[in-house]
Amino acid sequence: MLSSISTKMAPINPIKHYDYIVIGGGSGGVASSRRAASYGAKTLLIEGKALGGTCVNVGCVPKKVMWYASDLATRISHANEYGLYQNMNLNKENLTFNWNQFKHKRDDYVHRLNGIYERNLIKEGVDYIFGWAKFNSNGHVEVTKNDNTVEVFTGSKILIATGGKPILPDNIPGYQHGTNSDGFFDLEEQPKKVVVVGAGYIGIEFAGVFHGLGSETHLVIRGETVLRKFDESIQHTITDHYAKEGINVHKLSKVTKIDKDATTGKLTVFINDTEVLEGVDQLIWTIGRKSLLDLQVNNIGLKLNDRGQVIVNEYQETNIPNIYSLGDVVGKVELTPVAITAGRKLSNRLFGPEKFKNDKLDYTNVPSVIFSHPEAGSIGLTEQEALQKYGAENIKIYSSKFTAMYYAMLTEKSPTNYKLICAGPEEKVVGLHIVGDSSAEILQGFGVAIKMGATKADFDNCVAIHPTSAEEIVTMR
Amino acid sequence: MLSSISTKMAPINPIKHYDYIVIGGGSGGVASSRRAASYGAKTLLIEGKALGGTCVNVGCVPKKVMWYASDLATRISHANEYGLYQNMNLNKENLTFNWNQFKHKRDDYVHRLNGIYERNLIKEGVDYIFGWAKFNSNGHVEVTKNDNTVEVFTGSKILIATGGKPILPDNIPGYQHGTNSDGFFDLEEQPKKVVVVGAGYIGIEFAGVFHGLGSETHLVIRGETVLRKFDESIQHTITDHYAKEGINVHKLSKVTKIDKDATTGKLTVFINDTEVLEGVDQLIWTIGRKSLLDLQVNNIGLKLNDRGQVIVNEYQETNIPNIYSLGDVVGKVELTPVAITAGRKLSNRLFGPEKFKNDKLDYTNVPSVIFSHPEAGSIGLTEQEALQKYGAENIKIYSSKFTAMYYAMLTEKSPTNYKLICAGPEEKVVGLHIVGDSSAEILQGFGVAIKMGATKADFDNCVAIHPTSAEEIVTMR
Repeated sequence: MLSSISTKMAPINPIKHYDYIVIGGGSGGVASSRRAASYGAKTLLIEGKALGGTCVNVGCVPKKVMWYASDLATRISHANEYGLYQNMNLNKENLTFNWNQFKHKRDDYVHRLNGIYERNLIKEGVDYIFGWAKFNSNGHVEVTKNDNTVEVFTGSKILIATGGKPILPDNIPGYQHGTNSDGFFDLEEQPKKVVVVGAGYIGIEFAGVFHGLGSETHLVIRGETVLRKFDESIQHTITDHYAKEGINVHKLSKVTKIDKDATTGKLTVFINDTEVLEGVDQLIWTIGRKSLLDLQVNNIGLKLNDRGQVIVNEYQETNIPNIYSLGDVVGKVELTPVAITAGRKLSNRLFGPEKFKNDKLDYTNVPSVIFSHPEAGSIGLTEQEALQKYGAENIKIYSSKFTAMYYAMLTEKSPTNYKLICAGPEEKVVGLHIVGDSSAEILQGFGVAIKMGATKADFDNCVAIHPTSAEEIVTMR
Repeated sequence: MLSSISTKMAPINPIKHYDYIVIGGGSGGVASSRRAASYGAKTLLIEGKALGGTCVNVGCVPKKVMWYASDLATRISHANEYGLYQNMNLNKENLTFNWNQFKHKRDDYVHRLNGIYERNLIKEGVDYIFGWAKFNSNGHVEVTKNDNTVEVFTGSKILIATGGKPILPDNIPGYQHGTNSDGFFDLEEQPKKVVVVGAGYIGIEFAGVFHGLGSETHLVIRGETVLRKFDESIQHTITDHYAKEGINVHKLSKVTKIDKDATTGKLTVFINDTEVLEGVDQLIWTIGRKSLLDLQVNNIGLKLNDRGQVIVNEYQETNIPNIYSLGDVVGKVELTPVAITAGRKLSNRLFGPEKFKNDKLDYTNVPSVIFSHPEAGSIGLTEQEALQKYGAENIKIYSSKFTAMYYAMLTEKSPTNYKLICAGPEEKVVGLHIVGDSSAEILQGFGVAIKMGATKADFDNCVAIHPTSAEEIVTMR
């Protein structure tokens, strides 16, 4: 296979050797390569598309930017009740959003970040090339670069950090008329009527953004609630609030077929074979993600699990000596900071000083958040998980539901719902689940405390900050 | 004195006895009385004005409501750059704010809270009366009620929680033409041109609110920076940003005279005898607060310090057995949650179960925040204090200044500035000082961690939440 390619391509350059080859220039790969280079390791980073990977290009960053726009649109609809701009009718009916202009502004920002990532690689002395890597039959890393030339590399150590990609349901007729989360970020115009399929955090975030920006939004979910992997308090609060604020939540539902009108480009979406949504501008599949692993890893005998994810141990080691993997391609806690931290700790261990010889990421109590409207966030065990692990007699649940002060001036309220799960006689905090404005910012500090092993008494022991929402987390009884 | 009053008043009722008499229905008094009653103590609360005290009526609550309005006004000026309502010109020049309507809406909210406080007293079984208390010549608590009748009470234990009041500078000619923070909340109309005097957090919050709502705002401060009790990073960030965004910050300045035009009601404000501000609608003195202690405490020999504050020990005990004091009248950390916690812990100790026999509030590492634009927050030692306490060789400073992602889409930026102060070889966190959006909400969780004795390693050990501002606090190098 190697020879057949090479005959069509430019001649292969001499094989170059690196201390560390990182395949994939996303969050984990960039972080790991920079850290390795900082210790003097001769490091090569290979990226096929754009530096920063999913997070910077088609994930966290552009998503948060869209969330800001949507959140601001919602806040502006509060203006008149706050006594502001009462000579202008700033209600949702009058909302306009220049999607196309803003999309390009967002793209420009992402490109600036790509540039920052590149400059950081240069600053740290990491070599990098743009191209698609694979393991050739010799087990070497062969890269078809963007100019179609091919280079081959060997590495004393190799990191596979190629990330993930969204799934499409190719068993549903007309599925190809919809797009996925990557396609969401390509949309040049705002769909007036949009269907989002999936109850995971990506679908929930997109649905919130579309609705906040004024699209007629349909959310199709298989169960009764969204965010099924999160605590029930989050599931119910967000599901109920989305429905209340006007998102069309289609529960117990599956898309069964999609037709596209060749003239208008409009979609007809069939749900459960019974319900029909007509005149749909866009359908976004957010039904899951899978590993992006187009590296011919069979050439090195890399072991994958039945979901196609690279199997690693707690030190990010694969079954092949000196080949490591982390991030979304491994699939254990798919979060940017997890990949970054795992990448840095791996390089600490492989190339750093003696004190880091056992460095590794502890995947417990990793905080995560959802940029829904309102935001939600979670650390540790759900109530169900805590019940199973400790038994009902050994856990104590504290919770607080309230309307934040901001909404006291408004007719329409947004919910706040906090739940603290404690285990054992010492009431150690084993789970914290929050919904409400600023949850993403609120959670970080509590993450530190919980990781330190905080008990309910430690929470009680900190004097409240008044008036905030977060103070309710330290004053629950 | 008692007899002379009683002859003019209705006859005095028989003296009633309580287990616990609480003088002052503010944050501390209400919390302490409810907690005492929950343990079965026969408790009386005496309040002269409105339940909830400074916080609910002329402090935290109405202040935060005004901050919300001002913050929203500022956000709305970002709308067009966020692609929103581009057919309407939502810039600051077009801003209108219906101060009068909103003031009454805010008052209604405060009255609802007064009612909640009252219902909570009833629910907990606390007796309460509205009137002004004093210690009569017998050392009894004599209350002139709002209907001018007088009642006398004795208490097995008595709490003085009468709070504080703003200072006026009666040595400055024309000072009476200005008002104070209580008067701020009485303003029926928005001043077009306003002078705020004082660099403390109250003045900084008011100046931010006025400016955000479109008033021409002058801030007169004695030094070069505002918020002199806070870390220099907060002082400089807020001082510079206020000036940059258009607040007229008069540094090294004192108001020397105020004239009022009898016809127009406009003020002429003289600064440093050299500068003259004409056509000023309102001047707000925010130059400090003092204890509110109009109880004839000389009748019981209560010891005060030279600032007129009640002297207490760590158990809130005054020099008189069975008479306690806490909150702003004591003046040690003047914050609502401090008064609440001190009040509850006192009642725990006095009336609660054995396990609380030594309960008291630890006043160290109390978090506090400023609702400036942007917000700021602080826990523990400033850098200066840490230097003095530990010496330069024993402290390590981590800091991060950046522009939050929200502002990437905007021409005008708002600053974020985080500083972490660590001491000793274990790098124990002894100070955290933050400026930037959502600081008030961000700080609470870190407060728990720092109170637990967090080190830098504990901060590092928590995986970041991306994309947030707070994540920078756990990723500083």
